[in-house]
Amino acid sequence: MLTIDFDDSKPLYEQLYSYIRGEIEKGNIAPGAKLPSKRALSAHLKISVVTVETAYSILAAEGYIYSVPGSGFYAENIPGRSGEQKERPLVLKPEPPKQEYAVDFSTNRADTALFPFSVWAKLSREILSSGGDELLNSCSGKGVYGLRQAIVDYLRSFRGLTVHPQQIVIGAGSEYLTGLLIQLLGRDRCYGVEDPGYVKTHRVFSANCSRVLPIAMDGSGARLDSLTAQGIQVAHITPSHHFPLGTVMPAARRHEILSWACASPDRYIIEDDYDSDFRMYGRPVPTLQSLDRSSRVVYLNTFTKSLAPSMRIGYMVIPPELMERFDSRLGFYACTVPVFEQLILAEFLKRGYFERHVSRLRKLYLSRREHFIKSLEDSPLSGMLEVKSSSGGTHLLLRATNGMSERELVERAAGEGVRVYGLSEYYSFGSNPDESRVIAGYSGMSAQDISRGIAALERAWL
Amino acid sequence: MLTIDFDDSKPLYEQLYSYIRGEIEKGNIAPGAKLPSKRALSAHLKISVVTVETAYSILAAEGYIYSVPGSGFYAENIPGRSGEQKERPLVLKPEPPKQEYAVDFSTNRADTALFPFSVWAKLSREILSSGGDELLNSCSGKGVYGLRQAIVDYLRSFRGLTVHPQQIVIGAGSEYLTGLLIQLLGRDRCYGVEDPGYVKTHRVFSANCSRVLPIAMDGSGARLDSLTAQGIQVAHITPSHHFPLGTVMPAARRHEILSWACASPDRYIIEDDYDSDFRMYGRPVPTLQSLDRSSRVVYLNTFTKSLAPSMRIGYMVIPPELMERFDSRLGFYACTVPVFEQLILAEFLKRGYFERHVSRLRKLYLSRREHFIKSLEDSPLSGMLEVKSSSGGTHLLLRATNGMSERELVERAAGEGVRVYGLSEYYSFGSNPDESRVIAGYSGMSAQDISRGIAALERAWL
Repeated sequence: MLTIDFDDSKPLYEQLYSYIRGEIEKGNIAPGAKLPSKRALSAHLKISVVTVETAYSILAAEGYIYSVPGSGFYAENIPGRSGEQKERPLVLKPEPPKQEYAVDFSTNRADTALFPFSVWAKLSREILSSGGDELLNSCSGKGVYGLRQAIVDYLRSFRGLTVHPQQIVIGAGSEYLTGLLIQLLGRDRCYGVEDPGYVKTHRVFSANCSRVLPIAMDGSGARLDSLTAQGIQVAHITPSHHFPLGTVMPAARRHEILSWACASPDRYIIEDDYDSDFRMYGRPVPTLQSLDRSSRVVYLNTFTKSLAPSMRIGYMVIPPELMERFDSRLGFYACTVPVFEQLILAEFLKRGYFERHVSRLRKLYLSRREHFIKSLEDSPLSGMLEVKSSSGGTHLLLRATNGMSERELVERAAGEGVRVYGLSEYYSFGSNPDESRVIAGYSGMSAQDISRGIAALERAWL
Repeated sequence: MLTIDFDDSKPLYEQLYSYIRGEIEKGNIAPGAKLPSKRALSAHLKISVVTVETAYSILAAEGYIYSVPGSGFYAENIPGRSGEQKERPLVLKPEPPKQEYAVDFSTNRADTALFPFSVWAKLSREILSSGGDELLNSCSGKGVYGLRQAIVDYLRSFRGLTVHPQQIVIGAGSEYLTGLLIQLLGRDRCYGVEDPGYVKTHRVFSANCSRVLPIAMDGSGARLDSLTAQGIQVAHITPSHHFPLGTVMPAARRHEILSWACASPDRYIIEDDYDSDFRMYGRPVPTLQSLDRSSRVVYLNTFTKSLAPSMRIGYMVIPPELMERFDSRLGFYACTVPVFEQLILAEFLKRGYFERHVSRLRKLYLSRREHFIKSLEDSPLSGMLEVKSSSGGTHLLLRATNGMSERELVERAAGEGVRVYGLSEYYSFGSNPDESRVIAGYSGMSAQDISRGIAALERAWL
């Protein structure tokens, strides 16, 4: 029995609509049954005819009732009514709470203290107040041209790359861009990823394509025989600075890998230059992209490490011979980065803020690393640890020499509230050949945090 | 012959490094050749020994030379030197200039005049000045929890959906989210997309999965027999308001489609609710998601239409039974929307700005539509045009009754500087059964633009 609640905030026609719809769905009003006339119902419920008319017209528009001209309204036959289906309760597991550590030697935290909030805010204001069509309407699928130009200028000055803005594709982070690349090169090719390496990279390939194989590593980086023996066609590698081993690929291996790519028309290299901004000593290593004369190298980089992990802006440089294929197959995609963010970043690059920011970060990370290494040397831990650092990156590789296993190292540290990361975590395929190594990042940690962490590690490991 | 240029802005060690590296790459310094001693070279070039040492150590680190203790430095053998490869010139076609129209009845332009720049700027400032860890570090892969909660509240109030923030996945637009869904459901399933429909939707599926088939349409929307006859397993449909036909799927068809999905464990519906905010008359139609009791409907929506095409924020509601699969297979992905944008949008929703903005837009679009329809009725064009509008959307469907073909309509309009869109453009598979229809959007056009456009169409079509 319907009663109209005049105090309900819902409009009267909606109360009526909901009631009748519910009755039809439950089968209480049978298919084909005639509904009361508008006039009769309005008199009965003491509401206006217009209200009844509105409810009936919505019910008719949505297909719950139909009208027979000159006769009235009838209930539709609703097959498989939802009322007949069993209502399933929504059972949700709560999202697992993050385990809290007093000290977390994470490898992917940014130092928030240095982020140039005021500059970013100033640029946001400028761009919002310019507020025109460019800001609101879609840009090219490859990204805002001004940002692509700014990236080209940056790459020329700091990475020795000579590329054209048309080769640049901007996207929401390297995971997204990798997915796009797989669509470009074809998901049925045989892909190779470094093992050990970023586990996420492996997972992106696994989620998107049919064959992903491990590329074995040696002291010069990705092993050539590993590529050829397994029939890998597209190799994802990090020649500038391998994560987590820190290897920098020497020139000879670079040229060998390029020759490998040129030896067959279906081979490509994806060069992930993820932390090139944080090379601490010496000159940046020349990229494979800059050595490539055969359009076989796709260069990939992001602003995640140098700006903030929360800012999903990456880019890739497509070699000239793949560009036409990119435009025809994937040119329809809208760019995944908000235009607003792109315009801010373009100005941030053009006016030199980025360069200054990276240079401050680099100095900060260098001082933290020196503090970390020195403190380890001065600590009794030095008796049981080998410390490996490389010319880049923001973490140290620690190897126990007292027979303690990686698992023990990680668990004992956790027992003292400190998080370090076992190297096995970065092996997606085979097993870790040396089970006594852990990684400790320092990019998001103050000198004080590092010292506290080392003190706790002394309690844990000695 | 190397000369050192003391006025060059490049550091001396870098000039020396580049020169020697180039000579080795070109083969002018043969593999195995001994380099001059540091002392000899420094004396010869009148530079310090330290400078030579720096250059040599970089060359050694990068693998261009190697040292023999007690003897000196020797050139490495660089196989497949880039100098041997043919240098290919970079040939780039310029990006095609967009054809300019005096009046463009585009279906995907936003009205920039109404965008609440000052509110957005205020929220940006607030969030930047709060500038903490949350702003810079990665959020959950599904998006910032606060935004997911705000979307849940919005969906409950305005779409009658009862969902949990854990079911919400935020991503950089519906194209990206569709790609993610295909990874979730499997790329080897048989997918169906509406024909006609958004061509981009079809392209996203084609780029990502192996089988995409057309779903035929009738006056009630997606045809059930088209799903069953072709063995479609996952149907992408727009029941609230079909683009471009404007069909609203009636209740009976909704229940039939849900029953179809429930009849086999591998069937799913992707309900794209892309312009639900712009239903002009009556109540919003209940979503399939709200009728679904069997975890078979994934609900997809974006803020593209209601905020701005440049702002790549979409979301989907994953049904409970798919959530575990989502978390284990795809939970590793970082969220593709910048945290900054997510935090602004969350506040924009929570404080009611979004609701007010959409309501102003709706009123504006409604008045434009009424002006458009009225002007067409008053124009001599009314003799040769049938105008179809629906309860939602931001475009009209125009059908010529004088035998003029779609192609003629489009080309003659272009001749007068007006862009209208032939319906054939939206058929990805079969051919358009009625070749006399074009679409004219009005969301980005003032009343004046519309009148100018109609005047030009009179010249073109009469």
